[in-house]
Amino acid sequence: MEFSSKLLENAVYEMSQLPGIGKRTALRLVLHLLKRPETQTAQLSKALTALREDICFCSNCHNISDQELCEICSNPKRDEATVCVVEDIRDVMAIENTGQFVGHYHVLGGKISPIEGVGPQDLSIAQLVAKVKTGKVNELIFALSATMEGDTTNFYIYKQLQGIEVKTSTIARGIPVGDELEYADEVTLGRSIVNRIPFEGSLRIS
Amino acid sequence: MEFSSKLLENAVYEMSQLPGIGKRTALRLVLHLLKRPETQTAQLSKALTALREDICFCSNCHNISDQELCEICSNPKRDEATVCVVEDIRDVMAIENTGQFVGHYHVLGGKISPIEGVGPQDLSIAQLVAKVKTGKVNELIFALSATMEGDTTNFYIYKQLQGIEVKTSTIARGIPVGDELEYADEVTLGRSIVNRIPFEGSLRIS
Ligand SMILES: [Zn+2]
Ligand SMILES: [Zn+2]
Repeated sequence: MEFSSKLLENAVYEMSQLPGIGKRTALRLVLHLLKRPETQTAQLSKALTALREDICFCSNCHNISDQELCEICSNPKRDEATVCVVEDIRDVMAIENTGQFVGHYHVLGGKISPIEGVGPQDLSIAQLVAKVKTGKVNELIFALSATMEGDTTNFYIYKQLQGIEVKTSTIARGIPVGDELEYADEVTLGRSIVNRIPFEGSLRIS
Repeated sequence: MEFSSKLLENAVYEMSQLPGIGKRTALRLVLHLLKRPETQTAQLSKALTALREDICFCSNCHNISDQELCEICSNPKRDEATVCVVEDIRDVMAIENTGQFVGHYHVLGGKISPIEGVGPQDLSIAQLVAKVKTGKVNELIFALSATMEGDTTNFYIYKQLQGIEVKTSTIARGIPVGDELEYADEVTLGRSIVNRIPFEGSLRIS
């Protein structure tokens, strides 16, 4: 792609660094911004910069939050003894949408994936284990996606918890194996939380 | 969509204002930026802002340019007597890629479209007519997309040129009618420039 302007070329290049955005799409998006008032570009830039610079993670559950403690963790009506372990904020949003869960979350920040170079130390697993060790957690609900990486992560955490008294469960698999949580419909996802089963019962027979 | 962070909500909202980017995709893009180093977001914001604030249009052809006169218009090897009329910069890039055209361009900035509220005064048509009136242009090549709006725009310009001595042609339609120029393959597009036909010959029989 030959550009007549360095400014345009740079903008297209940076836009095309986003996942799923090719050069052609990036050019379309950038030309769209050029046709819109200058304020739209300013607001987009400002919103992205503000988020990236001022982003905060809840010190208790590691969810994205504007305060030190997120709204869920600071809500006295939520049950801190029941902790749902999820990959990222999209899963928190998906489960919150069902209205079926009144406990806390623990956001891992990803799944163990040797291929993508993500190990246990890249996730908030140590913090989760430490939280369970305080004795305040009765039950951990594993709600990672039902993929190889999700299963590996569940099992890794499960092993770390050996000898600590805590109930473990996984959400019921009404959700097709291999599917991402966030694309599940609310009813199925809500039911899978209510009908959760003990983690031991979900282990694959090998 | 319920957000746990206003900063996140704002960033997703602004991102979802881009065409073809829904809320879910916007969230995915924004979460991606959060996982990347802060510099990536800073560079994206900076590139978009710089483009939008410092954008310049060539005073001769109205193409996007970093100087008062673009590289094509300031190149003495290009033939200023042959002017190819296009919708936007993507068409310039597509035709330049063919390597088949050595003339100048005139970028209209869109097509006449009553439905989208784009009239002749919103495009650089008056400037094109004024340029032709100087007598320096031998031939105008219409290379708008072969859609109703493209045909309307061609015809409007053609009428404005009545009584002025200038050859008019349209690029040969090897390109399927209704298709956008920028998606044509280089060979077809290059040939359609070389085999251009007089504009009168391309008028639809009504
Ligand atoms: Zn929290
Ligand atoms: Zn120019």
